[in-house]
Amino acid sequence: MNVEFINPFINALINVIDVMGHTELTYEKPRIKKNDAAMGDVSGLIGMVGSKTKGSLSITFEKSLALRIMQRMVGEKLEEIDEEIIDMVGEITNMVSGGAKKELSKKGYEFDMATPMVVSGTNHTIDHIHEGHVIIIPFGSDSGKAFIEICFD
Amino acid sequence: MNVEFINPFINALINVIDVMGHTELTYEKPRIKKNDAAMGDVSGLIGMVGSKTKGSLSITFEKSLALRIMQRMVGEKLEEIDEEIIDMVGEITNMVSGGAKKELSKKGYEFDMATPMVVSGTNHTIDHIHEGHVIIIPFGSDSGKAFIEICFD
Repeated sequence: MNVEFINPFINALINVIDVMGHTELTYEKPRIKKNDAAMGDVSGLIGMVGSKTKGSLSITFEKSLALRIMQRMVGEKLEEIDEEIIDMVGEITNMVSGGAKKELSKKGYEFDMATPMVVSGTNHTIDHIHEGHVIIIPFGSDSGKAFIEICFD
Repeated sequence: MNVEFINPFINALINVIDVMGHTELTYEKPRIKKNDAAMGDVSGLIGMVGSKTKGSLSITFEKSLALRIMQRMVGEKLEEIDEEIIDMVGEITNMVSGGAKKELSKKGYEFDMATPMVVSGTNHTIDHIHEGHVIIIPFGSDSGKAFIEICFD
């Protein structure tokens, strides 16, 4: 997968979490996912379909980070992943894929997005079923980790 | 959501699990998802994009049922959800959405599918982020439960 394809997703996540959640994310170099799984507690997932390609995106958060972003957004401290957190992760997923779609469209890559899904469950992992590689990008913050995984056939 | 839209997914899952996994599924009446969550241990998820609509599908299995289907497919008894089970659930998701797509196309509903994702994690739940209703269909078997959830905007 071309790095041109990856950067818009990274930039969109960093921007959304900064603006919405007042939290700074740092990221490690994108790498091909092998045995390493992005383990987390709440994930936003979205399918992408273009005329020439199709794929999937997941954004996985550790619980501590998801709770902290919500706290910084609304000023209220939450203890558990609830409907509000789930909606927030769905919205982040929409914003990241929408932001990346816009950037990629300028470069001539066009795709449509399905509706997002949010998975909640302690220490879940996600496998993207695909023919190409899955790219994983780990993010750090003051409150826990996040991961983007992207695959395009 | 029209019942015309739901039945092809139900029929496809029953057929795939019967033919592939030699396991009979019975199903309860489809209903609008409210507070009830389809809790399970391994789920296949896929995004769907059409010119007029978009949506998402999830098929969630209890661990006992996923292991039993695999056992009946390959003759080998597994104890845990591993890569083989994950690939099987991804394949089931592809076959169910592909089968439903074919049936729905005959009725004039056209959509494309993204690539499937498989979530593994004890007792996870899935939220479909959407503007319409989510339909949930519970399935029973001799080895545990499964659930389909579908939403189309």
